[in-house]
Formats: sequence, structure tokens, C-alpha cells
Amino acid sequence: MGTDIARDVTEAAAKAREASVQLRLAPRERKDRALLAVARLLRQGQAALLEANALDLEAARGRLSPAMFDRLRLDARRIEAMAAGLEQVAALPDPVGAVLSDQRRPNGLRLQKVRVPLGVVGIVYESRPNVTVDAAGLCLKSGNACVLRGGSESVHSNVALGAVIRAGLAEAGLPADCVAVVATPDRAAVDALLKLDRLIDVIIPRGGHGLIRHVIENSTIPVIRHDAGNCHVYVDAAADLGMAAEIAYNAKVQRPGVCNAMEHLLVHQAVARGFLPVILDRYRRAGVELRGDEAVRAIDPAVLAATEQDWSEEYADLIAGIKVVPGLDAAIAHINRYGSQHSDAIVTADAPAAERFLAEVDSAAVYWNASTRFTDGFEYGMGAEIGISTQKLHARGPMALEELTSVKWIGRGDGQVRS
Amino acid sequence: MGTDIARDVTEAAAKAREASVQLRLAPRERKDRALLAVARLLRQGQAALLEANALDLEAARGRLSPAMFDRLRLDARRIEAMAAGLEQVAALPDPVGAVLSDQRRPNGLRLQKVRVPLGVVGIVYESRPNVTVDAAGLCLKSGNACVLRGGSESVHSNVALGAVIRAGLAEAGLPADCVAVVATPDRAAVDALLKLDRLIDVIIPRGGHGLIRHVIENSTIPVIRHDAGNCHVYVDAAADLGMAAEIAYNAKVQRPGVCNAMEHLLVHQAVARGFLPVILDRYRRAGVELRGDEAVRAIDPAVLAATEQDWSEEYADLIAGIKVVPGLDAAIAHINRYGSQHSDAIVTADAPAAERFLAEVDSAAVYWNASTRFTDGFEYGMGAEIGISTQKLHARGPMALEELTSVKWIGRGDGQVRS
Repeated sequence: MGTDIARDVTEAAAKAREASVQLRLAPRERKDRALLAVARLLRQGQAALLEANALDLEAARGRLSPAMFDRLRLDARRIEAMAAGLEQVAALPDPVGAVLSDQRRPNGLRLQKVRVPLGVVGIVYESRPNVTVDAAGLCLKSGNACVLRGGSESVHSNVALGAVIRAGLAEAGLPADCVAVVATPDRAAVDALLKLDRLIDVIIPRGGHGLIRHVIENSTIPVIRHDAGNCHVYVDAAADLGMAAEIAYNAKVQRPGVCNAMEHLLVHQAVARGFLPVILDRYRRAGVELRGDEAVRAIDPAVLAATEQDWSEEYADLIAGIKVVPGLDAAIAHINRYGSQHSDAIVTADAPAAERFLAEVDSAAVYWNASTRFTDGFEYGMGAEIGISTQKLHARGPMALEELTSVKWIGRGDGQVRS
Repeated sequence: MGTDIARDVTEAAAKAREASVQLRLAPRERKDRALLAVARLLRQGQAALLEANALDLEAARGRLSPAMFDRLRLDARRIEAMAAGLEQVAALPDPVGAVLSDQRRPNGLRLQKVRVPLGVVGIVYESRPNVTVDAAGLCLKSGNACVLRGGSESVHSNVALGAVIRAGLAEAGLPADCVAVVATPDRAAVDALLKLDRLIDVIIPRGGHGLIRHVIENSTIPVIRHDAGNCHVYVDAAADLGMAAEIAYNAKVQRPGVCNAMEHLLVHQAVARGFLPVILDRYRRAGVELRGDEAVRAIDPAVLAATEQDWSEEYADLIAGIKVVPGLDAAIAHINRYGSQHSDAIVTADAPAAERFLAEVDSAAVYWNASTRFTDGFEYGMGAEIGISTQKLHARGPMALEELTSVKWIGRGDGQVRS
């Protein structure tokens, strides 16, 4: 059984690798035609997609949390959103072929560095079937074949979506094998996939911390991790407290379940007594559970006591940890120690303090007088997003089309040899 | 014992991580001062370094091949070369702080993408003690702390070199812990190192295929592999055969042990009869062992018969595999199938054929009418080289200072929140 699964997964990846040769050389027009064909076929195939999704929902009923169950659900609006997303990706510029540098060496050799597709991208994800379409669309636009392995609970939806995508590819004259959906629900399929470093160029895991650790610990393929977001807002002594309240409120409350939402609020001791009552009151009215250190509880005893564990936590929920700090140094040290190098903000009118924060906090994104919620491919003007990298290698922060590419060096000479 | 080793390695990496905070913020002047101090101390400490090296040579006598034994050896010339290398690195521009993009978003947020150090770089290598100094110098210049684990046969040399480097750091007012040399000869030290993904940002293995596979299969830290070079020269029907002979000779013979040397020569059938006798004669006079397919042996029966295995081989020696191909398509297909995506060249006067080769051969470096031997950090104008990446993620081809950096997004606002 295990061997059969490994064989099936290897075969799908080998076909994707073969198909990738044609895709990486495909002109923009053909890739865009495929994206638009898939969008049209998604709309036309709505009834069949909802039917497949109903099988997944049926099997999941009572076994998933309401939030997970909702993520699994497709409806007309969500199918339209997937189709519209592909149309937007088709309208974006093609990252492939861009000349990143161009020089003539002293020996006359002309040397260019040119953007090329990665080749084959593996994506391992959970629950939401829209990832199947979003990820396939971005891989296709950037000239990459992909092997998609969604959660076992969404297998019927993913297979149905995969069939639509493959039909769109074929319609545009591209190999259907450019997109492979691994349908085996067995987890052995993931483990087999993670060892195919000769067929797959990169693995992008999207999901909870457990999935990501599993991938990191078992993959022989390079991984781009989209890991936890334990983000902070630090309200400095010199902050405009009105602005600080807007930013701290927005970062926590506007969409608490996402990775760029604030988890912990740090407040300079000089403004704690003036600022905390205002923001705590606003948080309470928004239903935020409050956990604070001793200094916070001295000002507002109704706040729960935070434990040491709290400071490392990504709640991804309406919960906030709050701490009073003696100053900028302590704020920076706290963030670098407990944070997850995702997104962190300072609110202050003191420019030198802000610049120290921006330089010294070792995170993918750092903000001065703005919400952490801006760490996002669309907000950064990329027009798309396939994840937010929390590692330093290859890509850091929001990832879109350019982050799905590699480079190639091209040397044109007239007989140069090395002496 | 295993636990002690793991504890020691973890402690060294944790100290390097802590030291990296100061190093990543260090101005160029201070880093350059440290590099120059290390260069001076290497020259001054020559006697002690040769003494330490003698212990390694003593222990290795009769246990290493002559080539490996020679790589292990230090002498006055090699110490001077290391010192001079550090002085060259000091003279290179600092990659840290470069602004890669700068935009004002529609909401007024000013968003910059800035180059920052990776943090802590782990390097696992074999034999040559000069890697200790070269790698530490490039890491230092790019603002990265490093954990260096050389081969057990060079441990005395590496520890002595490490002490010199740490003294130079301290002299320049930087933490000595920015450079850690793992002295434990036990291989368990490597395995412990490879699991420290919370302390080390990237692992660069430098050595034979066995070492690289071991690192890829056991590391939870992102790896940049510097793997095999199975490079090709393809002589097209429209080649200038004089130029083709110069390039094919240079690529094979000029320095056969390095990764960008040619291993296999492909010749279009239309020019095989005219070209092969010339190049085979030159190869023979240079002492190259020749292995060919049937078509080659029909022209020159003294050529040995190549096996299927030969086409995947990186000989790294004075051996060449030679094959006659029916045309450009077959040449490209052969290279993409058997090659290692390192460096491949076409010799032709036919521009459309050349452009197809450059686009379709999926290698880090592709050349038209030039030797594969140019794939090198110095030849590419980088001023240095820490390896040649044969993967597509993060860096591809020669790696120097910029490839040892990551990026950070900096947003400066005036109260922006997300709606």
C-alpha cells in the first residue's frame, strides 16, 4: 500500500516535471489563454463542483470545527471569486524573461542574468479548496508546473477543481500534466512527495504549525515556510496616543484570524497610565480577551494574568497579550526574543527611536506609524499572493509571481576560453 | 556522549545567534577593520598555524589520497593567499543596506525593500582549511555570523584559524562569537548542527556528493546545495570547428577537477567525421581518457566504449565521454536528461539554434561560443565566491556577498490602518 502510494505520487510528479519543460518556454499569451479558459470553465462547471464539494461536506459533518467546516464549503460566490482571481492573474505582467543584469566582461563575453521559472512547485495545504485554484493559477502564470496536495477532507472538491484546471490547460494547448492533484487521502502521499527532490524544485506548505513542522522535518526538497505570525505593536513614550489606539485596534481586531494580525501590545511605561484605559476599553467592547503582565493589571485589575507562555503565542483569535516595557530597548529585545519575525510596528513621533526599531527588529516587515495588517501581496502592489515567507532564504514577506521564479545566467561569446 | 556533542554544538550556535545581532547592525568600517585585522594576524601567526597544520598532516599521513593530503596542507604561500583574499573582500562594497525597491502606496505608506544579512550561516565542508578563512570572511562582510564545521582531518588547522579570526573580530570591537568553529571530530556534531533551524538560517554544504546528500536528507535548516557539475559542450553542425576545438579542449583540460569543467562532449553527426579526429588527438596528447558511443568508435576504434552510466558521471578528472547526436533537439534532450543543471555550452554560427539552446537547456549557466569554465564568482565580476548553487531556490550559479543576504520590508506611515 505504502509502495503503491509512493509510486503514484512519483509518477504524478514525473509527469509534471516532463510537462514543465513545455510550460517554462510557453509565451505569455498561451499561459494567459489557459488562465482565462479555466476561469470560464469554473463558472460553467459550477453545478458539478458544488456536487463534489457536497461529498466532502457530507463526510466532514460533525468531524470538523465550525470554522474549518466553513473553510471547506464552496458556493457560487466563492467559485466566482476563484474565477475572478484567475482573470486578475492573467492581467499581471509575466515575470519570466526579465533581464536582471546585463554586462560585457573584460574578455568580451556578454553575460545576462535572466528570470526563469522554478520548474515544479509542490504545495501541501489544508482545508480550503480555493487554494487549489489560486496556487495553480500563480504557478501557471510564472511558468511552473505544480503538484498540489490538499487536505484529505477536501479531496473530492480538489479533484473536481483539478479536472477543470487540466481541461483549461488542454484548451490552451498546454499539457494537462502541468497541474497534478494528488488525490490519495493517506498521509503517506505527503511523505512520499517530500522526498522527490529530483522531480520537485520547492515545497510550499500552507497550514497550521503542525503541518509546517512535519514538512520541514521530512522534506529533502527546499521548503519555503509560511509559518506563524506573532506580531507586535509597540506604543512608544513619544507616540501620538490617538494614532496608537487606531493602529493597535486595527492590528488586533480588523481580522484577528490572519497571520499579520497583532497578538501582543507593548506599551512604554511613561504612557501606560494614559493609554491603557483607552485601548483596553475599546478592546473589551470588541470582545477581545485581555491578558496582561503585573504592570497592566495594576492599572486594570480585570485584565487576566498573562503567563510566560503567552508571549510566544499566536492566538489567531480575539485575544491580546499586553505588557508594559521600560523603553525602546526592552521592546526591541522582547520582539526579537518572543516574536516570529513576521510583522511588527512602532508608534512614535520620535524619528531616531523609530529608525532604531526599524533597523533592529529582525522581522520580515517592520512598520513605523502603520498597522501590521499591511503585510500582504495585494497591499504591497504585487497583485497576488501565494503566501508570506517567514524564512530568510529565497523570499521574505509576501510572495507572488516573482518569488515563484529563479534565474539563469546566459553567456554569449565569440570563442572565449579560460586561461 | 551524543547528548554532550549536541549540547556543545547548540551552545556554539546560540552564541553565534546572539553575536549576530550586533554584527548585522555593524557599519561597513567596523567589518572591514575586522577583515584587515584577521589578515594581519594570519601573517603574524604563520608559525603557530603551520604547527597546528602539522598535527593534522601527521594524523592523515597514509590515510588520505595524495590529492586530499595536498588539499589539507598549509604553507606560507597558502596563508598569504588567505590573507590577501580577506583584503580583497574588505575592498568590496557592503551588500547590506542596499534599497532594492522604494514605493509610495496609494494610502500614503512609503514601502522599501532593503537588503539585510541572513543572520547565522552554517557551513559544513571537507578537507581544505582555507575554506575556514574564506567562508568566515564572506560571512563577516555580509553581516552574518557563521558556524563552521570542517572535516575531522583538518580539526587542528581549523581551530587555530578560528582563534586567529576571533582575535581579529575582538580587535575590531565585534563579538568573537560571530565565528564559531565546531571542533568535535565526531560526525554527530554535523547531525546536531543540521537540526538547529531556530538558531541557524541557512546551511551551505561544500564537499563530495555523499556529504551533500547527507546534509539534504538530514537538515531541517534551509540548504543551498553546491552539487555535482556534469557539464557539456555541444558542437553544432554550423560550428566554427577551430573555435569548437579550442572551447572543448579548454573546458575539459584546463582544470579538470573543478565543477565547471566539461565532462561530456556532444557532436552533431554532420561534423563528427571532420571534427572528432582533431579533438580526440588533442585530448590524447593531454592524457585524457576517452569514452565514446558507437558512432564515435566507428570513427576512432581506439576510444573506449561508454556505458549508460557514463552519461550521468561527473568524472572531475582527465576523462571525457563523447557522443554523436543527430541534431540540436537530441543535444538539448541529452543535456536536460543526464546533466546536473550546472554549466553547458553550444558552439555554433547559427544564431537561432544558439538561442534555442540557451532557452531550452535548463542549467544555471548556458554559453554560446564560450567555455563552461567561466561559471565562477570572480569571472562573473562578483569579486568573491562562496560556492556555486545548483538549485533554483534563493541563488543559482556563483554565490558571493549578495547571495549571503536576505531582505526586509520597511513601511513608514502616518497612522495608516487597514480597512
